[in-house]
Amino acid sequence: MKKSGLKVVKIGGKLIENENKFRGFLEDFSALEGPKILVHGGGNFATEMALKLGYKTKMIDGRRITDENALKVIIMTYGGLINKSIVAKLQTKNCNAIGLCGADGKSIISKRREVKEIDFGFVGDIEEVNAKFIGSLLEQNIIPVFSAISCTKEGELLNTNGDSVAAEIAKAMSTHYKTSLYYCFEKKGVLANAADDDSIIEKIDKNKYKELLEKNVISDGMLPKLHNCFQALDHGVSNIYLGNASIFQDNSQHTKITQ
Amino acid sequence: MKKSGLKVVKIGGKLIENENKFRGFLEDFSALEGPKILVHGGGNFATEMALKLGYKTKMIDGRRITDENALKVIIMTYGGLINKSIVAKLQTKNCNAIGLCGADGKSIISKRREVKEIDFGFVGDIEEVNAKFIGSLLEQNIIPVFSAISCTKEGELLNTNGDSVAAEIAKAMSTHYKTSLYYCFEKKGVLANAADDDSIIEKIDKNKYKELLEKNVISDGMLPKLHNCFQALDHGVSNIYLGNASIFQDNSQHTKITQ
Repeated sequence: MKKSGLKVVKIGGKLIENENKFRGFLEDFSALEGPKILVHGGGNFATEMALKLGYKTKMIDGRRITDENALKVIIMTYGGLINKSIVAKLQTKNCNAIGLCGADGKSIISKRREVKEIDFGFVGDIEEVNAKFIGSLLEQNIIPVFSAISCTKEGELLNTNGDSVAAEIAKAMSTHYKTSLYYCFEKKGVLANAADDDSIIEKIDKNKYKELLEKNVISDGMLPKLHNCFQALDHGVSNIYLGNASIFQDNSQHTKITQ
Repeated sequence: MKKSGLKVVKIGGKLIENENKFRGFLEDFSALEGPKILVHGGGNFATEMALKLGYKTKMIDGRRITDENALKVIIMTYGGLINKSIVAKLQTKNCNAIGLCGADGKSIISKRREVKEIDFGFVGDIEEVNAKFIGSLLEQNIIPVFSAISCTKEGELLNTNGDSVAAEIAKAMSTHYKTSLYYCFEKKGVLANAADDDSIIEKIDKNKYKELLEKNVISDGMLPKLHNCFQALDHGVSNIYLGNASIFQDNSQHTKITQ
């Protein structure tokens, strides 16, 4: 039988940048009962750091490329400063956290993305999540906090999409736990009208998703997130919610994704 | 009864900077049998990064002060880039490592150093090592790799002396394990003549230490290291060795510290 009630929570970079909202989020997150995992982005912090260091952001066809310098900055900021700062803050809230990247305990193993039209550089696509190791931390009431960095079997650290990290962790853990996945970002949920922040679509199932795609309602940024959601549902994740930093508060508005 | 054979190994920053020597050291370290813990410094990497970012190193009376910017750089470089790179490298050598700072799993709790003549800034003196948590990792054959960053109970990350981190971990673990402590740095051991790299003193006990102090033989940099050593021996650590990156090789020369 599955253990009950694991929450895997992704918090987006733009929320982390907003000190007030982020503080509130961490309060709510630390108060959540039961096992939980946090995955965080890094927002503009890495870009700002790269700028200060005089590293130019490499772009091809409008897509950001992770070259060697960009990877270094990502490991320093996401894997170092932001990750450890979140862990230290959670410790003060009676939440015994541990900061991890994919190399730690072989927790997230990836493969460097194949070069097709574009060489994205040091970017990884996840192959395997070490559910046994992550589970052993949860059993000790330790809260894993993941930066979105994975590692190849050959020991190469790779920049990895944070939404995918959260989805893959949720999928892997759902073998052992009844798992819910939460995507927290700057909007209250999926919007019917991108210009109206209150036009939240409360529920999206596969049929509704199809309909929204046909009507071209979903914004570009939301498309891969929703794709991740339906993939996760197909692989054992029980519930998925999209909302803002207040998602764990009573009466919060959000979007629920169902089969 | 104590479990046998834990090795706590501190590797200094200058060795990390030497790519060849460091590679060799990691080969040897990963081949060591039994439970082990690595503590690393960061060398000039943080200073270089601070320079690139235009942060000035604050000095008072020739002592380096960890101001807010310096702390950020230390967390980024030691806690992020260097720590995660070491973990990733160890993973390729069949050594299942996990990168930690003191906030992770409340592993190293410190107090901000009191301001006396000098305010050292964000610098911590260790109060408590979480031997239970570290032991639980060792039980799972996971190798903790510590950057020299501790955390107060109030969630403040603090720059901490790497030699002290290693000594405090060794002392705390010695309650459960027969523990040996290794300090690896750029010299082959404690030297009788600072100008002669081969003038290694093979054994130092308390009497010899006194004698060396009186004769003013020990270099300034070595004094706090030896102080740490004798304190660790007084608190249950079984064996202490000082040597260079080759310390784990057969016939390596080194200094052994005994009661």
